[in-house]
Amino acid sequence: MHDVIIIGAGFSGLEAARRLAPGHDVVVLEARERAGGRVLSHSFANGDGTDLGGQWVGPGQDRLYGLIAEMGFATYPLWDEGDHLVKAGRLKRYRGTIPNLPIPVLLDLNNALSRFEKMARQLDPAAPWTHPKAHIWDRITVADFLRRHTLTARAREMFTIGIGAVFCAEPHELSLLHALFYARSGGSLDALLSVSGGAQQDRVHGGMGGLASALAASLGDCVRYGEPVQEIGWDKDSATVITSRQSWRAKRVVLAVPPSQALGIRFDPALPSNRDALWRRMPAGACIKCVAQYERPFWRERGLSGQAVGGNLAVRVTFDNTEKGKDAGLLLGFIEGEEARRWSQVPAATRREAVLEAFADFFGPEARSPIDYADKDWTSDPWTRGCYASILGPGVWTTLGKGLREAIGPIHVAGTETATYGFGYIEGALEAGARAAGEVAKALGR
Amino acid sequence: MHDVIIIGAGFSGLEAARRLAPGHDVVVLEARERAGGRVLSHSFANGDGTDLGGQWVGPGQDRLYGLIAEMGFATYPLWDEGDHLVKAGRLKRYRGTIPNLPIPVLLDLNNALSRFEKMARQLDPAAPWTHPKAHIWDRITVADFLRRHTLTARAREMFTIGIGAVFCAEPHELSLLHALFYARSGGSLDALLSVSGGAQQDRVHGGMGGLASALAASLGDCVRYGEPVQEIGWDKDSATVITSRQSWRAKRVVLAVPPSQALGIRFDPALPSNRDALWRRMPAGACIKCVAQYERPFWRERGLSGQAVGGNLAVRVTFDNTEKGKDAGLLLGFIEGEEARRWSQVPAATRREAVLEAFADFFGPEARSPIDYADKDWTSDPWTRGCYASILGPGVWTTLGKGLREAIGPIHVAGTETATYGFGYIEGALEAGARAAGEVAKALGR
Repeated sequence: MHDVIIIGAGFSGLEAARRLAPGHDVVVLEARERAGGRVLSHSFANGDGTDLGGQWVGPGQDRLYGLIAEMGFATYPLWDEGDHLVKAGRLKRYRGTIPNLPIPVLLDLNNALSRFEKMARQLDPAAPWTHPKAHIWDRITVADFLRRHTLTARAREMFTIGIGAVFCAEPHELSLLHALFYARSGGSLDALLSVSGGAQQDRVHGGMGGLASALAASLGDCVRYGEPVQEIGWDKDSATVITSRQSWRAKRVVLAVPPSQALGIRFDPALPSNRDALWRRMPAGACIKCVAQYERPFWRERGLSGQAVGGNLAVRVTFDNTEKGKDAGLLLGFIEGEEARRWSQVPAATRREAVLEAFADFFGPEARSPIDYADKDWTSDPWTRGCYASILGPGVWTTLGKGLREAIGPIHVAGTETATYGFGYIEGALEAGARAAGEVAKALGR
Repeated sequence: MHDVIIIGAGFSGLEAARRLAPGHDVVVLEARERAGGRVLSHSFANGDGTDLGGQWVGPGQDRLYGLIAEMGFATYPLWDEGDHLVKAGRLKRYRGTIPNLPIPVLLDLNNALSRFEKMARQLDPAAPWTHPKAHIWDRITVADFLRRHTLTARAREMFTIGIGAVFCAEPHELSLLHALFYARSGGSLDALLSVSGGAQQDRVHGGMGGLASALAASLGDCVRYGEPVQEIGWDKDSATVITSRQSWRAKRVVLAVPPSQALGIRFDPALPSNRDALWRRMPAGACIKCVAQYERPFWRERGLSGQAVGGNLAVRVTFDNTEKGKDAGLLLGFIEGEEARRWSQVPAATRREAVLEAFADFFGPEARSPIDYADKDWTSDPWTRGCYASILGPGVWTTLGKGLREAIGPIHVAGTETATYGFGYIEGALEAGARAAGEVAKALGR
């Protein structure tokens, strides 16, 4: 009989374990043979590393900055110098956060953005369903919002690319209330879309995947890999957790996996109906993260930042993901939403060509000749099934959202999808892990 | 090594078994200790029966009428005489299918309904995503449609009750394309809402649950109960199906369970990402079916049909569910959508009181004193998790719907959610079972 079994060795589970391990008998059960969950390291052929999962840390994410420092890691800013590119029709250069668009489009876009931000600011991120207009905002989609509050197709298109970059989903899939909550939970939509001063500001030396591995290693052999949980039997005092290998018992459980994975576990007694219904309405967005490695960051020589947005090819958002201190240049591109569904179905080589073609469309023909390439289709990963995080369609928050963080008997619920600050981000995973650890410590009376 | 393993002994799996059993070695694996799936018999204390799951058959449902006759069962019409009641403000009587509402509301409602029907008629029920406007209709919800095409709140309210009765969901949860498809798949929205001439026309002597049991019994001991499937391992030629009791092998599998249950099975190799993403976006509606038994159908004495619609209590749709040939009168009420979520959380006795209160609101104080009562909350049933069927939100059909019926290696997919005619109905379950059986027979070359 252990004190607590934590299911999932992503940042949320690891954070819960880190807080509970002193003074408690803790076991972490991880389905995969690695830690990190939606954070994943990749090594190129030449030995350089990159992150194929979550990788950024930015202002306001104090838990993550704290953890980075505590684990002896250091951050460096994402390359953010030079001109950005926007392709809406013709390819144009711009500086700052506002793309170079015709004045009427800019005014239209700014108007919609500031209206959105103003609404988001009013929400309580711990209980978005309590806002007086929550029921109205939860009954319409972001697409409805754009139809009502934009005048130009170009502004809708740019807003839609922003939504894609933040949610890996299309505006019509998202409850407006969820989108507002998500922005509020991350500070603001502007913060979520920004590099310097925003959620894409800093990277970690050694990679976020390296940090996850180090954190798991620091917990010693209480982290057990290759233990996919199949069943949780529970009563009010304890739980039995059955994996494909063995059976474990504990007084408390922390479920630190995304809703998609929680649905794959049989509960006995069965889950309360509203929790089951909630998780069934929390599918994740679709994202393929693509990184091409070049001999050098050639775009910098032409005064480009490596950040591009728009176009109509597979990749519509790019960053200069070059690791500080390395010679090789890295271009990072995201395939998102409906495009990710499409490109998830094609052979790897074809997808690689399509990604490089999109890079070349922004940065010129040199982009067609990388020295190495890697991508990660998170929708195909059976232990994740989509990224970055769950998206909530119309009506879910106001009917079922209240139960999101409630414990089910001795089973406490963590994971970034239960965060109030940083829902969908590593920061949120840490908050949720810490909150669940607090609940467990209190329940165990220590 | 069996020829085929059928997972699920609902009407879809039973129909597949019935067609394949002659000439093939068939096993049906059912998680529960009973057949029927979303069809379920209940016996009152006095021995009378009623259906707490699917119960109706109506014009156009030729497969189901055929099966009823073949199994030696008989049908009788649902009681449809006398005045219906509508409560939108005051309680009023009416006859026919159109409630007694103020003329402007009636015109408004008829206009929205006929527009909806006209759009639905244009769809190919086998491939709704191919309509030229499918992408537009799939990006808006039924709530959007109502905002655009109704002028009065009363008409929207009545349309919303109709949507609730058909989908057990709210208009903002449903892609307009899905609602149009569903109506087309069932004939028309009018047919789905109607008693005489519609989907609620006829009942079965002995209950639909009795028919399911008889069908299962006719298949003999190839139907194995208490065998919940946990895992399916597969390659192109065969599959291994692992239940909590044992392991089974077959050349082909028919998966005849709702998407919610399919998601609880581990596949090895893992499911293709687009199928996984599709099933994750097919949660079912919420429904509690409530039946009160009275000494006699007292409402008939006052010239009432027992059919009522509207009000603002737990039950907003009722029928006279009296079994032909019995003295006792049965009132049937549905708690649907958001109301079902709410009433799923309260103790059984409280819910009973609320249901009887709603019946009394329509039919007078006598409704408060039944001789017996039963209800079934389908959202709480771990082997179903919602009724009547999956609902698809915005964007699902046009991005992921194409794969709905495709076999996954040797695993063929049935269940009413894969039907072209009668999606969500027993008729659709039969169609899908027959189609999957045909695929299997062809694959086995017999």
